Amino acid sequence: MSQSIVALLHGPDRPGLVAQVSNWIWQQGGNILHADQHRDEEAGIFFQRVEWIPAPERLDRDASEFKALAKSLGMEVKVRDVEQQLKVAIFVSKYDHCFHDLIVRWKSGEMPGKLEMVISNHEDLKDSTLGYGLDFYHFPVSRDTKAEAENAELELLNARGVELVILARYMQILSGDFLDQFAHPVINVHHSFLPAFAGANPYRQAYQRGVKIIGATAHYATEILDEGPIIHQAVTPVHHRHTLKDLVRKGSDLEKIVLAQAVRWHLSSRILTYQNKTVVFD
Amino acid sequence: MSQSIVALLHGPDRPGLVAQVSNWIWQQGGNILHADQHRDEEAGIFFQRVEWIPAPERLDRDASEFKALAKSLGMEVKVRDVEQQLKVAIFVSKYDHCFHDLIVRWKSGEMPGKLEMVISNHEDLKDSTLGYGLDFYHFPVSRDTKAEAENAELELLNARGVELVILARYMQILSGDFLDQFAHPVINVHHSFLPAFAGANPYRQAYQRGVKIIGATAHYATEILDEGPIIHQAVTPVHHRHTLKDLVRKGSDLEKIVLAQAVRWHLSSRILTYQNKTVVFD
Amino acid sequence: MSQSIVALLHGPDRPGLVAQVSNWIWQQGGNILHADQHRDEEAGIFFQRVEWIPAPERLDRDASEFKALAKSLGMEVKVRDVEQQLKVAIFVSKYDHCFHDLIVRWKSGEMPGKLEMVISNHEDLKDSTLGYGLDFYHFPVSRDTKAEAENAELELLNARGVELVILARYMQILSGDFLDQFAHPVINVHHSFLPAFAGANPYRQAYQRGVKIIGATAHYATEILDEGPIIHQAVTPVHHRHTLKDLVRKGSDLEKIVLAQAVRWHLSSRILTYQNKTVVFD
Amino acid sequence: MSQSIVALLHGPDRPGLVAQVSNWIWQQGGNILHADQHRDEEAGIFFQRVEWIPAPERLDRDASEFKALAKSLGMEVKVRDVEQQLKVAIFVSKYDHCFHDLIVRWKSGEMPGKLEMVISNHEDLKDSTLGYGLDFYHFPVSRDTKAEAENAELELLNARGVELVILARYMQILSGDFLDQFAHPVINVHHSFLPAFAGANPYRQAYQRGVKIIGATAHYATEILDEGPIIHQAVTPVHHRHTLKDLVRKGSDLEKIVLAQAVRWHLSSRILTYQNKTVVFD
Repeated sequence: MSQSIVALLHGPDRPGLVAQVSNWIWQQGGNILHADQHRDEEAGIFFQRVEWIPAPERLDRDASEFKALAKSLGMEVKVRDVEQQLKVAIFVSKYDHCFHDLIVRWKSGEMPGKLEMVISNHEDLKDSTLGYGLDFYHFPVSRDTKAEAENAELELLNARGVELVILARYMQILSGDFLDQFAHPVINVHHSFLPAFAGANPYRQAYQRGVKIIGATAHYATEILDEGPIIHQAVTPVHHRHTLKDLVRKGSDLEKIVLAQAVRWHLSSRILTYQNKTVVFD
Repeated sequence: MSQSIVALLHGPDRPGLVAQVSNWIWQQGGNILHADQHRDEEAGIFFQRVEWIPAPERLDRDASEFKALAKSLGMEVKVRDVEQQLKVAIFVSKYDHCFHDLIVRWKSGEMPGKLEMVISNHEDLKDSTLGYGLDFYHFPVSRDTKAEAENAELELLNARGVELVILARYMQILSGDFLDQFAHPVINVHHSFLPAFAGANPYRQAYQRGVKIIGATAHYATEILDEGPIIHQAVTPVHHRHTLKDLVRKGSDLEKIVLAQAVRWHLSSRILTYQNKTVVFD
Repeated sequence: MSQSIVALLHGPDRPGLVAQVSNWIWQQGGNILHADQHRDEEAGIFFQRVEWIPAPERLDRDASEFKALAKSLGMEVKVRDVEQQLKVAIFVSKYDHCFHDLIVRWKSGEMPGKLEMVISNHEDLKDSTLGYGLDFYHFPVSRDTKAEAENAELELLNARGVELVILARYMQILSGDFLDQFAHPVINVHHSFLPAFAGANPYRQAYQRGVKIIGATAHYATEILDEGPIIHQAVTPVHHRHTLKDLVRKGSDLEKIVLAQAVRWHLSSRILTYQNKTVVFD
Repeated sequence: MSQSIVALLHGPDRPGLVAQVSNWIWQQGGNILHADQHRDEEAGIFFQRVEWIPAPERLDRDASEFKALAKSLGMEVKVRDVEQQLKVAIFVSKYDHCFHDLIVRWKSGEMPGKLEMVISNHEDLKDSTLGYGLDFYHFPVSRDTKAEAENAELELLNARGVELVILARYMQILSGDFLDQFAHPVINVHHSFLPAFAGANPYRQAYQRGVKIIGATAHYATEILDEGPIIHQAVTPVHHRHTLKDLVRKGSDLEKIVLAQAVRWHLSSRILTYQNKTVVFD
């Protein structure tokens, strides 16, 4: 397989964008594998994901020169060699269903990223992590030590070059400071179909409200809890015979699937965010 | 087909309830067609729907004597001859998709109730209603005339013996007084997966929040808007290419299906309510 | 709104197709509204749907000149002014749920085509059709008269310029001769999730096999019954309490939705077919 | 928690069955926790699942005496102490997604059975099995040694008292002789929405047919491949951008969920079979 480049662009819509981008790639001898674009007509924004195989002699230049092209078109852009996989850390607490699910998927080759480490505020999943042959770091968090723990986590993440954090039912809220300083995306899974049942105990809330459908939501974490851009959601029907425990069990399957799908899309450079929403080029 | 009786019971759980109910029917020579029960263990409440064909000579007595039995067991009960179909009124404004859908279903024989009339605060659907061969009543509603209009509606509903009101995208909020005085169930359809996006413009809210799933909810109307017991919900996936107009169109199909299903369940005596939730014996 | 043009292209994949198409439109002063493409890597085929607003002075020339461009790129192409809506005929027999559903959608403005007529082998839906203000044509079909009836239908369809036939639970099989001579697409709805339960009585087949999910399929009709390219499918869960009659009722809702969606996609020039499959640019 | 008993009955329908069963339990001082029944009106068969807490002094007698009662009512019956969990063996080949999924669920306490061993015709999953702390048995299968291997497997299963075999993407077909001699249920997962795409390579078949929905099916294995009673099915939409590899990945998630759910229902004595169909008391 030849090495390909993937770019995500967005910016003010104007005539000729598709032509100019595709033309440039063609003229440099590149071969477009996938090109997907979207216009938000209300917002007047243009979005594009384009993946191409550069001409062999231009392997080192296409990425940087494409950035210049995008800038000249007034677009923000992220460009990545597809072979340069993102480095990832998983944060967990005690719930282990998303943890096991993600790692088994990683081992099966399904996740196009480099899993660097598991970080937890508890030691419950230490042995399992080591059993999977992965590094485990324990940062206990209490109200008094939270800032300190987050600093230590940031130092570790930076030292290892982590570019994506996955909150796999991590039961601590990351501070705005952490998110600012990490400066890379953080994907969280919330166990309800947001915006319904944000906050604590969503399954209990759903049970008490008597809904007939429960869900799970994967979203980018922002400073405001459960309000970041939604990447993916899944739901399943429930009925009066289902107990709270049944809701938790059924919901766990949804959490696993939406989180894994959201992470896979992110690692494949398929997601753009704007105005607290996402464009997902599936 | 022999004439059958259907009873809905609920009350404090205690041993022997299933035995005593089924025994009584058997001893009177009745033949149970369906018996479905449920226990809410947290709440300690027992629920049952039982349908049986009484012995021919007891056609006139089983219903009333069963009420006495239920009372002696500490149960609240509703008993109905299946042939005595409920009388129904549909309230509409200008949106007509649920209106046409319900009436076409009624004409096809799918809805086990008697459709008595259509009531509207506008005249837009008058001709269509008359074209379907149904009575149409127009009660304009303004802030000043609301109480007066509701009184006139109540008088009409009572005069015609209406036992169920369906709000088929009716754009007025029925007052608590109306609901109290009508004293029969009112089924509403809300165009979101409640409790998300209660209130006005739910599709606009969903579009702005960037959800990946939209829904519709049929529920019993209570004095608090969009907070009554949920009967049925349905959802469908959406993505970034879908405009607000697409959401409205896709949601309309959900609204039709959840409302029709909820009404059909109610007309078949399949729904019990408690603690702002429903038990639906499907 | 300015008048737009929509083109559907497909042909052997080769480098530069996206660039050359988008460039041509840009150079003629056109403004691309939507451009969606797909490559089937196994088959080596490129597909594109592109919609643009031509420069005002080129309104009469863009469509025909674009065809020449596509030909020069080795592509097959269909080009259409979006305002030139396709003319449509609905074929029905006695089942009326898809019939009413389609026509109510048409009257609500949801279907971007011109509904020319209803054709039936029975007279059951004549009054309803006339009540909707539409033309009704009755062509009884028996084994002996089938060829004759089809010829009369073809003559009528041609005389009226019909470009799409919708089989809305039409209970006759159109002959290969009819399909050849009509030479326009025919969309059928089959009441199962094809390829399961092709042929007669699919709900009965599904009931007897004890499936836990039933479905409906909209597809282009071909000479081989129920084997044409699938456009859309929808399913719903069923369980042991559901009778055959329940399956029919639940399935009817699916049939309505998949058929309406498939027709809307076709009328919006969103579907390409190849190798008995479809590409749907939704 | 008190110890409860669960019974599954079915037989010719006749008046008084619900009354006689519930009465008997009540008269022995038992307390019914759940009672769910079903009548197949076409077939004239009555089905019941009833779970009760016997009076303390009757712990040893209720189960056996209930069997006599059922027999006197003309019913076939299976009775089980809920604490007596079924013994289970998992058969695997090389695909490991259902294997890992089942075992992680078992370890989380979600599966009410005793996992006795993993059996495989390959050694690929030996280390993983041992890593989970489970017994692993390797029985290579070739055309010539199949009968011999099956005999050895049967001997092992009998020796360990296994009462349920799960085929977790086991790539060998069990012979009718094996099924007869094992004489306990075998649950298989097939990677299509049966009856569509039975046999080999269902994802390839689905891809080539161009379906818009793929699925997975859990069913009891019978001598005729992929034709046993269906327990559970799940589906997910696909579109033209999905490659065969995408179908395999998306389908794997369905396989895991339907197989785990089917096994959990079986272990909870919730499934009755008749006429190649299932009644599932969920």
